[in-house]
Amino acid sequence: MKNKISRLQEIMQAQNIDAVAMVPGANFYHVTRGSFGLMERPTIIIIPVDGAPVGIIPVLEMPAFSALKTGATTFEWQDNDGFQHAFNAAAKHLGSIRRLGVEGQRMRVFEAQAFKQAFGSIEIVNMQAPISSLRLCKTPEEISLLQKAVDISEAALEDTIAAVKVGMTERDIATMLVNRMSDHGSHGLSFDPIVAAADNAAEPHAHVRSDYNIMEGDALLIDFGAVFNRYCADITRTFFVGDVSDEHRSFYEAVRGANEAGHTVTKAGATAHDVDDAVQLFLENSGYGEYVLTKTGHGLGLDVHEDPYIMRGNHMVLEPGMVFTNEPGLYKPGDLGVRIEDDVVVTTDGYQCLTSFTKELRIVG
Amino acid sequence: MKNKISRLQEIMQAQNIDAVAMVPGANFYHVTRGSFGLMERPTIIIIPVDGAPVGIIPVLEMPAFSALKTGATTFEWQDNDGFQHAFNAAAKHLGSIRRLGVEGQRMRVFEAQAFKQAFGSIEIVNMQAPISSLRLCKTPEEISLLQKAVDISEAALEDTIAAVKVGMTERDIATMLVNRMSDHGSHGLSFDPIVAAADNAAEPHAHVRSDYNIMEGDALLIDFGAVFNRYCADITRTFFVGDVSDEHRSFYEAVRGANEAGHTVTKAGATAHDVDDAVQLFLENSGYGEYVLTKTGHGLGLDVHEDPYIMRGNHMVLEPGMVFTNEPGLYKPGDLGVRIEDDVVVTTDGYQCLTSFTKELRIVG
Repeated sequence: MKNKISRLQEIMQAQNIDAVAMVPGANFYHVTRGSFGLMERPTIIIIPVDGAPVGIIPVLEMPAFSALKTGATTFEWQDNDGFQHAFNAAAKHLGSIRRLGVEGQRMRVFEAQAFKQAFGSIEIVNMQAPISSLRLCKTPEEISLLQKAVDISEAALEDTIAAVKVGMTERDIATMLVNRMSDHGSHGLSFDPIVAAADNAAEPHAHVRSDYNIMEGDALLIDFGAVFNRYCADITRTFFVGDVSDEHRSFYEAVRGANEAGHTVTKAGATAHDVDDAVQLFLENSGYGEYVLTKTGHGLGLDVHEDPYIMRGNHMVLEPGMVFTNEPGLYKPGDLGVRIEDDVVVTTDGYQCLTSFTKELRIVG
Repeated sequence: MKNKISRLQEIMQAQNIDAVAMVPGANFYHVTRGSFGLMERPTIIIIPVDGAPVGIIPVLEMPAFSALKTGATTFEWQDNDGFQHAFNAAAKHLGSIRRLGVEGQRMRVFEAQAFKQAFGSIEIVNMQAPISSLRLCKTPEEISLLQKAVDISEAALEDTIAAVKVGMTERDIATMLVNRMSDHGSHGLSFDPIVAAADNAAEPHAHVRSDYNIMEGDALLIDFGAVFNRYCADITRTFFVGDVSDEHRSFYEAVRGANEAGHTVTKAGATAHDVDDAVQLFLENSGYGEYVLTKTGHGLGLDVHEDPYIMRGNHMVLEPGMVFTNEPGLYKPGDLGVRIEDDVVVTTDGYQCLTSFTKELRIVG
């Protein structure tokens, strides 16, 4: 914890930030190992640029917070009294804070407002990326947890695919998949699985249907992931039910080629832009360019979506240990969608693919 | 949708709010039926106090947003270009907005900052409670969905409890429970189940352990809930493994009596304060008052925690159709915790209990 706090303080110094306030989530866990819900009860650790941390903690979370041994001076609050007095006491204790760094994509308006009320003329600075940068390059231990999450996911997918039959609903298949992940040791879901057949697969964020029975010739897109020790897998494979038309096969192979094109340029020293550019160029030249809707991928770790975002225009240089998804897709409204998603770790001279489930076109059911 | 928007506009008028901006979640779904993730991509519907809605929507969500038929003027944005231009265009379209109401517990700092940048001198007002008040009193259809979520949960609990054996880990039991919920038709989890034995049960928000084997005499607290069509169950029962000491039985019965004391005063016209007060008085007079950590409960519906919060000092008057948890607990560090949680609907002359799982002390394993 001390190393991480020191690194955070260096970042604050460089950006002229007086303190960082973190709410429960990936960064809070990464720095303190504290695992709290992001609920209606503000639960916050403040790390000043120098000096000891300060906690704003609901009474019922105090035993768990104390057990983290953060060395924080803690201001407790109870539901009955509300939380503002704890923010005020923390502000008084901290003294002059002009610029407070927060996780802009995680801290909510009511927490920021409580800080403003407590501190008066404070400036709230979105430090989402700098704070999360502590987690950008994964350690070997983190990679092995991600690998475990992927292995559980792939074993569950294999079991599920073996049981798919024409006439099942998307919901039937999603239920099997969730149960098999749990059987294989998942600690949770990275997100509610997407199981989308035929035209529903043409929605990148499709919702599972209970009223559509899969039919021969349908594309069947499955996007899901298990969680293991808080680390998230995120995998997509697209199958075909019973049979596949030549046109759909060609559509599928374009996506598969784009995924491969992305892998080919992945290595330390390349940029996030380079990877997306290779993928997009492949898709644009495939004859299906009009069916592209999304960038190539996103970072993966304690959060399902985190840096590095694999996107044209993002010139972040890839470093060994960064983990991201390579998930090109093509989405043809009213007909089908195909997405193929791998989870990869950047290495010095290339990449390590955590996912190993086949990408050969596979007929199921 | 029109009725709900009209009610929202009446609330805005009463509070001198020029527009409300909602992000994905319970309120967004309740008003529009739109089901989007709360991710790094701002996806927002703005409802002005008069006039048509305005959307700020990522390109890849456009088909799903258009299908809602909100009548919104929509400003799209793509990952490559960022989202600020869409906020700016929405602001220009909306004209003079001085006070913007938001869900303070849901909207994040980066979204609020994008609004401030787009609108200039706008005041962001936390309207969490007024916006959510549209969902306070559940319709019969909503109650039947909650009942279904509870029924699935209780069936899964019965299956799980029947299979519990001395020596299992908390993780083993949690895995069974998740699978059985899925088997019984759950669409998801209200939250990661809490399965906590012995001293771990003394933590109100305990984490499931993989390295503790349950033993004869342990309390076994299980707090969990299935989701059905987005509606959330939230149930707790506490069992004892193999045997129970007289002291633990007495501890258990104090919690059971408190739960009953809360039910007894629940009816339309009573206040949230009244219910918590009856529960707390019972616990204070039980001889175990020092082991109280929490208020009695919270509202339940599309969110697992929502109004009404059942807490001393909350003088909200209960109305027919409000749904909340009655979940007193006693937490004795190093020894055990007991919590018993029912989900109840307020009726004109009392309450309807959605949960029916026995509260008699039950020995398992």
